[in-house]
Amino acid sequence: MEFTAKQIADMIGGRVEGDEQAKINTFAKIEEGKKGAISFLSNPKYTPYIYETESSVVLINEDVELTQPVSCTLIRVKNAYESVAKLLQLYASMMPKKTGIDPLAFVSKSAKIGENVYIAPFAYIGDNVTIGDGSRIFPHVTIYDGCKIGKNVTIHAGSVIGADGFGFAPNQEGYEKIPQIGIVIIEDDVEIGANTCVDRSTMGQTVIHKGVKLDNLIQVAHNCEIGENTVMSAQVGLAGSTKIGAWCMVGGQAGFSGHIHIADKTFIGAQSGVISNTKGNGEQLIGSPAIDPKIFFKAAAVTKRLPDMYKELAALRKEIEELKKTK
Amino acid sequence: MEFTAKQIADMIGGRVEGDEQAKINTFAKIEEGKKGAISFLSNPKYTPYIYETESSVVLINEDVELTQPVSCTLIRVKNAYESVAKLLQLYASMMPKKTGIDPLAFVSKSAKIGENVYIAPFAYIGDNVTIGDGSRIFPHVTIYDGCKIGKNVTIHAGSVIGADGFGFAPNQEGYEKIPQIGIVIIEDDVEIGANTCVDRSTMGQTVIHKGVKLDNLIQVAHNCEIGENTVMSAQVGLAGSTKIGAWCMVGGQAGFSGHIHIADKTFIGAQSGVISNTKGNGEQLIGSPAIDPKIFFKAAAVTKRLPDMYKELAALRKEIEELKKTK
Amino acid sequence: MEFTAKQIADMIGGRVEGDEQAKINTFAKIEEGKKGAISFLSNPKYTPYIYETESSVVLINEDVELTQPVSCTLIRVKNAYESVAKLLQLYASMMPKKTGIDPLAFVSKSAKIGENVYIAPFAYIGDNVTIGDGSRIFPHVTIYDGCKIGKNVTIHAGSVIGADGFGFAPNQEGYEKIPQIGIVIIEDDVEIGANTCVDRSTMGQTVIHKGVKLDNLIQVAHNCEIGENTVMSAQVGLAGSTKIGAWCMVGGQAGFSGHIHIADKTFIGAQSGVISNTKGNGEQLIGSPAIDPKIFFKAAAVTKRLPDMYKELAALRKEIEELKKTK
Repeated sequence: MEFTAKQIADMIGGRVEGDEQAKINTFAKIEEGKKGAISFLSNPKYTPYIYETESSVVLINEDVELTQPVSCTLIRVKNAYESVAKLLQLYASMMPKKTGIDPLAFVSKSAKIGENVYIAPFAYIGDNVTIGDGSRIFPHVTIYDGCKIGKNVTIHAGSVIGADGFGFAPNQEGYEKIPQIGIVIIEDDVEIGANTCVDRSTMGQTVIHKGVKLDNLIQVAHNCEIGENTVMSAQVGLAGSTKIGAWCMVGGQAGFSGHIHIADKTFIGAQSGVISNTKGNGEQLIGSPAIDPKIFFKAAAVTKRLPDMYKELAALRKEIEELKKTK
Repeated sequence: MEFTAKQIADMIGGRVEGDEQAKINTFAKIEEGKKGAISFLSNPKYTPYIYETESSVVLINEDVELTQPVSCTLIRVKNAYESVAKLLQLYASMMPKKTGIDPLAFVSKSAKIGENVYIAPFAYIGDNVTIGDGSRIFPHVTIYDGCKIGKNVTIHAGSVIGADGFGFAPNQEGYEKIPQIGIVIIEDDVEIGANTCVDRSTMGQTVIHKGVKLDNLIQVAHNCEIGENTVMSAQVGLAGSTKIGAWCMVGGQAGFSGHIHIADKTFIGAQSGVISNTKGNGEQLIGSPAIDPKIFFKAAAVTKRLPDMYKELAALRKEIEELKKTK
Repeated sequence: MEFTAKQIADMIGGRVEGDEQAKINTFAKIEEGKKGAISFLSNPKYTPYIYETESSVVLINEDVELTQPVSCTLIRVKNAYESVAKLLQLYASMMPKKTGIDPLAFVSKSAKIGENVYIAPFAYIGDNVTIGDGSRIFPHVTIYDGCKIGKNVTIHAGSVIGADGFGFAPNQEGYEKIPQIGIVIIEDDVEIGANTCVDRSTMGQTVIHKGVKLDNLIQVAHNCEIGENTVMSAQVGLAGSTKIGAWCMVGGQAGFSGHIHIADKTFIGAQSGVISNTKGNGEQLIGSPAIDPKIFFKAAAVTKRLPDMYKELAALRKEIEELKKTK
């Protein structure tokens, strides 16, 4: 398919600067531009590339002032990132989509599968599992018995939903397993990355609420609950029974202790270790144990000087002792 | 199935306070209680729920004093957590269990499989693998050639036993692979979570001893050894040839350098980085590099004040210089 | 197969000290030596074992001076570690290798598979995927549509190549998915461990260059690029669009922010958090945020004394106030 700059601008409500008839038939990153491609400029770090890109058309924010002439055609928009997202969605919606239950999938006879569901080869859907309309289950996903998957849910390859929570009671000879008889509930519009694990509850349910987005290799332990529209980057880990609020953002490799509550709209930096309840909505935290980011980064800067501080402290002590003597 | 409070109390050696004929047919968390359910109260944080739970029966420790009347029937026991574990085990033992080798599993002809083993669809059991009686292998588990799995072992979905250890020798053009010709031995009564990896040894064996419990997404590198009844939370990582003692507890996301020895009964906090041998049994460690938890948490508290300390140090220096001058 | 010490020495250019006719038929670690086995001594920590090993033959560096007599036969070589690697390679090259596409694998009709490729049971090879000659794809690997795998690539069990990058744009009601229409390119001679994830690019490609070695459970986000011959230990995480140079070494559980550039030959310690571009080739970094290792370890040593420093600072303040008064 081929479109002109004018056609694209009309689709996304933009304004053309340059050749309205410039033709594009593919996407490219601005730094890897080529003739016939459309690129976008959103992150200011990439601004220098606009002067040398070979892409035919570039989406750019209305308010960006360019200091040199450019050879590409520009489409001015309010938010270049949103516009490219919209274009990619249009593009993706025109691509053929896989649907249906692949004959190489395992789907228990007692599972209830909605309409327009895709279940890939080697996906495993256990007994009494329900999967809502429009959901897509990729290869090597395991959904253990009894778990409930909502509508328009995407689960990428290798993720495991509903394995036993990690519960053992010590006795004299070793540990006895505490049976995990609960389930996992994944609500509508959730997307789960690859090789992520969401454990079933000891009793009751582990719940991933509507619109949550989990990246790859994340651990969600038994009895956890993640609030609506919270997003978590890769390799995050939640210990048991922790509840995360709605609209939170969690950076990669962050970890949460068990049995704590994180308020709505909390922002947790990458590699943080959160060990207690947060105070209220909108808080930001980073570090392990996690603290206010302003303090964290200031303290990190001073940390480098700690050995010098230690020496200076000893020097001051000595000088004070001198002063006392000579007083 | 339905039981009365009296029947349950008799099963676990408890004493009924309230209606001995109260009927229960399911389990529920105390904060999600409902008529006909039995709950338990073990963590004091949850005590307030006992006054409002709708569960018909609640297991509670003998020594807990309640300050208000409750509408549920109580069963007083020595240890509510152990009692609920016992009840869950009784319940689980009455549930039908999957057994046998699923026709959709791949089991090499040279593998030796014990009695009462369950091998799920899409499990892969390589050449010359042995699996002991009563073990359960869930979907998408891979067991590479030659690995030995003991009795009553559970391996959850997606875990990989016996992939090559990470061994490469640099040369001028790149890295040459060091073949990994050893195996993995998993002893009896081990439980391994989902998407965990235990690498085969370069030569000899990587060993997970009897009764070890590993959570999800854990990395155990080549030539490691984990002692009896040690438990590790999710996302822990062990570098090559490290030996962990028996009865240790390791918190989530902790990491261990290679070629170190951890003594028995060591307690390693979440997100710790352990880079050297530990001193002796019963030690506690946290932080990266890992140190005594008392020092760690005191230092963490002071760290927040580091920028102020830095300023104060400069102020003191100035004042001392003044004092010297005016002396 | 059985070889004499003399035959082995001739293969690897070594010199026999002891019985040239000593027979060996297997490998063993020096601390687990047995009659008929060949071991090696490379790490000086293991030197004491050479006096008590039961192995028949031990490979040892030319320059190691032994202080007591040994009962085993020695083969003196320049580099014992390289020599044992060479022997293991010889041994491995004599073992039968699995080849061909297993009938239990799923390979799309539009995929292009090279010569001498092994594709294991339950591997999933999507549409328009290409796999170069001599590559080996283990069980439960998923390669999404359109990804390109080079020659002599090894991908261990459960790894996922080409799942969607983690891209979502927030709106009033939740997040909209940004379609990920790019691909993953894995160049020749790459080895990828078990349960590792390499996400496809939003547009363009995520690239793992020639000779890279990735361990288990690693996360490589969309649009990343990893330079030639870089090695990464288990559980490392890269956020989106980050570029790692060639010949870097990255320790386990380290994390990288998005959109940063790491120069060639950079050495990143385990559990580091790298949040900005590095300065130049050959730099070493550790900690979170990552700094010079010398400063890091000095500061870590002082950190333990922080509570004492805090008290000392208050004491000095008090004494100075006293001095001022009495001046």
